Order: sequence, then C-alpha cells, then structure tokens
Amino acid sequence: MAIPYPHFIGSEKSAMETGILVPSSPSSATLSPVILTQDELKRIAAYKAVEYVKSGMVLGLGTGSTAKHAVDRIGELLRQGKLHSIVGIPTSKKTHDQAVSLGIPLSDLDAHPVVDLAIDGADEVDPFLNLVKGRGGSLLREKMVESSCRKFVVIVDESKLVKHLGGSGLAMPVEIVPFCWKFTAQRLQNLFEDSGCVAQLRTSVENGEPFVTDNRNYIVDLYFKKDIGDLKAASDEILRLAGVVEHGMFLDMATTVIVAGELGVTVKNKLK
Amino acid sequence: MAIPYPHFIGSEKSAMETGILVPSSPSSATLSPVILTQDELKRIAAYKAVEYVKSGMVLGLGTGSTAKHAVDRIGELLRQGKLHSIVGIPTSKKTHDQAVSLGIPLSDLDAHPVVDLAIDGADEVDPFLNLVKGRGGSLLREKMVESSCRKFVVIVDESKLVKHLGGSGLAMPVEIVPFCWKFTAQRLQNLFEDSGCVAQLRTSVENGEPFVTDNRNYIVDLYFKKDIGDLKAASDEILRLAGVVEHGMFLDMATTVIVAGELGVTVKNKLK
Repeated sequence: MAIPYPHFIGSEKSAMETGILVPSSPSSATLSPVILTQDELKRIAAYKAVEYVKSGMVLGLGTGSTAKHAVDRIGELLRQGKLHSIVGIPTSKKTHDQAVSLGIPLSDLDAHPVVDLAIDGADEVDPFLNLVKGRGGSLLREKMVESSCRKFVVIVDESKLVKHLGGSGLAMPVEIVPFCWKFTAQRLQNLFEDSGCVAQLRTSVENGEPFVTDNRNYIVDLYFKKDIGDLKAASDEILRLAGVVEHGMFLDMATTVIVAGELGVTVKNKLK
Repeated sequence: MAIPYPHFIGSEKSAMETGILVPSSPSSATLSPVILTQDELKRIAAYKAVEYVKSGMVLGLGTGSTAKHAVDRIGELLRQGKLHSIVGIPTSKKTHDQAVSLGIPLSDLDAHPVVDLAIDGADEVDPFLNLVKGRGGSLLREKMVESSCRKFVVIVDESKLVKHLGGSGLAMPVEIVPFCWKFTAQRLQNLFEDSGCVAQLRTSVENGEPFVTDNRNYIVDLYFKKDIGDLKAASDEILRLAGVVEHGMFLDMATTVIVAGELGVTVKNKLK
C-alpha cells in the first residue's frame, strides 16, 4: 500500500529526525506529497517511539513487523554510542534472536521484574487505547512484559485504528492449551454467539499443522460480526474458561499510541 | 491414621453395600466400632459415589488417591456386567493409564463435550461446596472436564473439610507457564499479601527439579495465613495475571460432596 505523506502532525520532530528520508527537492520551500509504503509508515512510528528511550532503561522489546523497526533502531543507537546501559526484555524468541544479532544486552522478567518502557506494535487500537495484539502469536509473553512496565508505547500505522476491538474483522487471538482444543474453541465461540463469533484454530501456512506458540500452546482466532460490548467483562469470561491461557485484548495498558498515517504522525496519550 | 468407624449416617446404604467389609460379628445385633484407615474412608466415599453411575453415561474420571478407588470400582462393575456402555473421560495421563488397564472405554472432551457425571476427590471442601483441587497436579484437565458436566460428585474423607478455602494451611495450587515463573510467583504472592501469602514453586521429590504438569507447565503452591475473602474476586484476579494458566479453586462446581468420616458417610447436596 502506498499513500501520500506530506508532513508530520502532532509531533515536534521532522521526518528526517525520525530517520525517514523524504525524497523531496532540498531547494523547494513547499513540501510535496511523498508516497510511503505501509512498512515505511511502521518505521516512522517505530523511530518516533525510540525517542522515549533513555540510557540506563530496562526496555520491553516487542514482536512483529512494526516492533522490529524499533528494535533495529535501538541497536543502531547503541552502536552509535547515543544510548548505553540498556537492558532489553524480549517478548518472543524471534525478538530475542534479533536483539542478540544487534548486540542489545538482554535479560528477563525474573531478573528485572519492573520494566521502564516497552515498545510494541498492535493489530487494533480503539479510541480508548485498548488493543488487540497477538496476530503474530506472541501475545502471552508480550502481555507479561507489558503489564509490568511503567510506560507502554504502542506503534502502529493508521490502518490499525478501529472504532471497537474486533472491528477490523480480523482475528482476536486466544492462546489455549493443546489438550482438547476443539472443546475450548467451541466454548469460546459459544461465549460470543450474540456477536456472531467464529472460532478457528490457527494453522501453519507451511504445513497446515496447528501453529504452536513459544509456550507450546495453540492459538484460536476469534472473528466477530458485531461489537462484543463490555471488554472487561468479555476478558474475564474468556479467562474463566479452563483451557484458556491468555487472550489478545490488552485493556487499559497502553500509555501512549503513536500512529503513522497519511497526514503524519499522531501521538495519543492515555487520559489519567 | 486409624479412626473408629461405627456406622453410616446420611446414607440409605450399608457399609456392605458400598463394598467395605466391616469385621463385626454377624450374630451381633449391636455395631461395634471399627478402626478404618484414611485410605479405607476414601474407598467408602468412592464406592458410594459410584452408585450414581448408570449404564450409558459419559463419565469424568478424576485423579488422585480417592478418585483412584472410584475408577477401580467402575472397572469392577463393568467386568461384572453390572454396568455397560460407559465412556470415560480421564482427567490426567495417570487416570488414562489406570482406566486402560481396567478396560474402561475412553474418549475425550472433543468427542464428548457434555459429561453426564464426574467423580473426583478434592484437597479442601468449604461449607458452600467450593473446593481446592490440584495438589496432585492435574487441576487444569480436571477443571476442563468438571466444568462441563451435568453432575459433579466429590469424594473426600472428613480431613478435607475446612471452614474456608486455604484454611487447611496446605497448598492452593496455581498452574503457570514456565516462562519467567519467578516473576509470576512473585506477582501471585503480592496479590494476596494481606492474607500472608507465601508462593512456592512445586518441585519433584525425586530430583528437586520443577514439577511439570501434563500440559508441560509449572505449579506454584500458595500458602495462606488468613482467609482470602471473596473467592470469586480472588479467582478473577489470579486469572487476570498473564502467565497464569489455571488455579485450583473450583467454585460453584460440585453438585454433591460425599464425606466419609468417623461417624459414617455424609452426602451434601448443593442448594439450588
């Protein structure tokens, strides 16, 4: 997807400062629209988030195509000596491997139970900064890290904004134990019958086998036709089902959401 | 432990009918006290519970030293032709193996999502028939089976009766993912700080390594000094912690509790 990208709004920094090169004539006083891909938008949001990182911080490192840019950028700033004494807490094996390759020092929640700042992407963001996460399959570790951080900055391109969670028509993932997964999937579907819920086991694209999480569990993706209503009630009902390990709704957790979109970068802070 | 066992109360059946031989003089009109071990009491409760089993039922088969007697008894009645067309749903690998050895036909929740009757032991029973289960380590599968049954008969010896859950001073188990277990254990302990909670990872007696459940998770045992108060609120708070898979409180699930004690068998039914 390529969309015009004229300038930044809701931010004091220029595109250049966030590390994105905007190919416009240097002699021109007026900004001409620039076509950026969705991945470039993700990178803009990620670089903006990394401005919150200070030396000495314990950092939650997210997982997914947007968070990857943030981890890359942190590695770059460490290499350049612009950041030091960072401890990263990766939210997946994949991010662990990426951070190792970039030379970011790593630890875990056992050694660092309080995280200063976590940066991660999201699959959906509602107007109250509630999120759906986990389409990448790392929702449990992400939630463990991000529920224990002082500041949680979420980075998305504007396609992730929804009026209500589930509103994109895409998956709301639930991590479940493999034991009798059909039974648990059916119970999840029954729970949201009124919202036209369909529950589907996530399978691997390569071989059609069940997708297995870092914790050796399965993922059931829930698809809703209608708004599920009270999110906190829905969360508790899901968690009360024996067989459910965790779900992808991240309620009341994000402190800041950075949205890169057609009209620039918007920073939304949680109302206190 | 050996205690006197004079007769049955709260039951229409005699000790003989429940399969326990009481060694008293057949010609004597008065019952003389009999010393029974705790294991014999468990067997009495178990045999009484099996009276609820009818041919053609889908049966949840519990796990532990008391439930084992019930499974043995079901196998015996099948062999004798007094029961037929039973389908058992085992709540652990151990019970699965026991049932196979007894020739009890088995299935699972995927094929039989509605269970007619489950019979299982418990570690604690409060006056409202709420339970603590899972000291044997099978709490998750037990809860999956027993939360989907029409009738759930719990069998205990009277040492399991408590005024409030956690009141025995013994463990209330919580199944958690191995990832950053110390972090999760600490959060569980913090949650019940006011009740003087101590959280301990369960380890194997043989080698001191973490005990691993059938679902390849760990168990953290919670010990309380004081009543934890509102059980439903406590349950939701535990389940909301990312990293927790399930806990050992079985609230509002038992429909009948059969208690074998010093003064006989008592059958407690849930008030509707």
